[in-house]
Amino acid sequence: MATQELTFYTARGSPFSERVEIAFEEAGVRPTKHFIDLRNKPDWFVSKVNPVGEIPAIAYGGPKVAPENPSPDSVKLAESLVLLEFVSELYPNANLHPKDPVDRARARFFIDASTKVSPFYAFILQGTSSDGFVKALRNLQALLPPGGGWAIGPQFSIADAAFAPFLSRLELYLRNDIGRYDPAEGERVYKLLFESAEFARLQQYWRDIAARPSFKATFDEAFLLDYARAHITRKAPENNST
Amino acid sequence: MATQELTFYTARGSPFSERVEIAFEEAGVRPTKHFIDLRNKPDWFVSKVNPVGEIPAIAYGGPKVAPENPSPDSVKLAESLVLLEFVSELYPNANLHPKDPVDRARARFFIDASTKVSPFYAFILQGTSSDGFVKALRNLQALLPPGGGWAIGPQFSIADAAFAPFLSRLELYLRNDIGRYDPAEGERVYKLLFESAEFARLQQYWRDIAARPSFKATFDEAFLLDYARAHITRKAPENNST
Ligand SMILES: N[C@@H](CCC(=O)N[C@@H](CS)C(=O)NCC(=O)O)C(=O)O
Ligand SMILES: N[C@@H](CCC(=O)N[C@@H](CS)C(=O)NCC(=O)O)C(=O)O
Repeated sequence: MATQELTFYTARGSPFSERVEIAFEEAGVRPTKHFIDLRNKPDWFVSKVNPVGEIPAIAYGGPKVAPENPSPDSVKLAESLVLLEFVSELYPNANLHPKDPVDRARARFFIDASTKVSPFYAFILQGTSSDGFVKALRNLQALLPPGGGWAIGPQFSIADAAFAPFLSRLELYLRNDIGRYDPAEGERVYKLLFESAEFARLQQYWRDIAARPSFKATFDEAFLLDYARAHITRKAPENNST
Repeated sequence: MATQELTFYTARGSPFSERVEIAFEEAGVRPTKHFIDLRNKPDWFVSKVNPVGEIPAIAYGGPKVAPENPSPDSVKLAESLVLLEFVSELYPNANLHPKDPVDRARARFFIDASTKVSPFYAFILQGTSSDGFVKALRNLQALLPPGGGWAIGPQFSIADAAFAPFLSRLELYLRNDIGRYDPAEGERVYKLLFESAEFARLQQYWRDIAARPSFKATFDEAFLLDYARAHITRKAPENNST
């Protein structure tokens, strides 16, 4: 299908990029990838690809050029959910877009509901309350087909690709006690979400995700753990003996 | 196309609902509409249609039933952008979905960029800074085709339907000095956005929107003005003579 040039701008470890990478994997496509160093962002990326300066981004069409020298004749696209739909439409063989408009709407509704889980990052990074994302996960679990299957049924879809990078990080960080939350609270939330009967359906869903080849190919657990252990540290207890 | 039952749950004056109403208008379809009183929300709406309690929502499929008595056999959908895509796909004659995947991606990218204008509500309701939404409008204007036309080209699309309800309210409230911002600042922002040369392309776009029949059919200026004048009032200056 995609006979046009396509360059995928990405960065290692980004959950937003992973949404799109899963779609490429499902399609069996290896795009030209170019990694952007976010701590030392090249000027050309902002001026010629994405004025907002974020990855993931795609340059599509135009002449064959080096990734560092994008052509003004290619279309520049960004926003992971936009790119996820785009890549899924470009490669229909990936079967990520349900055929039925009702199922497509259910997939997009699931994605919208799944974005409400993202405050778990504030729990990890600032130790804020877990109430919000636990409630969002409860709502999300209620949307999953009760008997089993993916977000909207037997077919793996954009809904699963959009949520997998976030569910996986939540599980990884909690299981490894990474984050600035209180350790006892972290353990309570991990057990609630990943061991309790109340969340059995979510746990089944997570096992299915974790076994999906496209997810496994894109999720770099060792890298994420190293990075998180180096950057997300709890403050040492204060020494009050001065 | 839609031979299934369809009930549209809405409320007067909601910009989110208007996105979907514009799509129905473009399709020439009159759905069964049911108005929800948001200040006195019926229990059945939350338990049987949208657990989050928000309009717009759609019940689709299942047997013919009264709107107040939704069938468990219909699919319940919510979120204005999900519904906008759904209605556009259900009625392809509305031509709201560009045929080319690149154009669909550009439309969704425009919509994402347009949602960054929404902090103008904080300007209206709390008098916060205008910097954020003015910048978002500058970015959005840069996405408009320079020569004229709709958000992504000659065809009116989901991008225009998604943004029109918000651009129109911004213009309406600023022009009528409705909001808790400082009046001089309101006048400055109105002139900048709707009269200055810098925003000439946005002004052209706004004139095109304002003339579009589907927009005119759904935008109830008199109702919005009455409602806003009654509810969004500046505090009376404090009397310091005590
Ligand atoms: N809403 C964007 C968010 C993307 C995003 O936050 N990307 C991060 C990396 S994970 C980024 O590029 N940040 C810019 C920076 O760090 O300078 C999307 O869904 O694609
Ligand atoms: N993200 C939702 C927002 C919808 C929304 O905020 N709807 C408001 C009315 S404009 C609502 O129903 N609020 C619930 C309430 O007032 O109780 C969408 O895009 O549809």
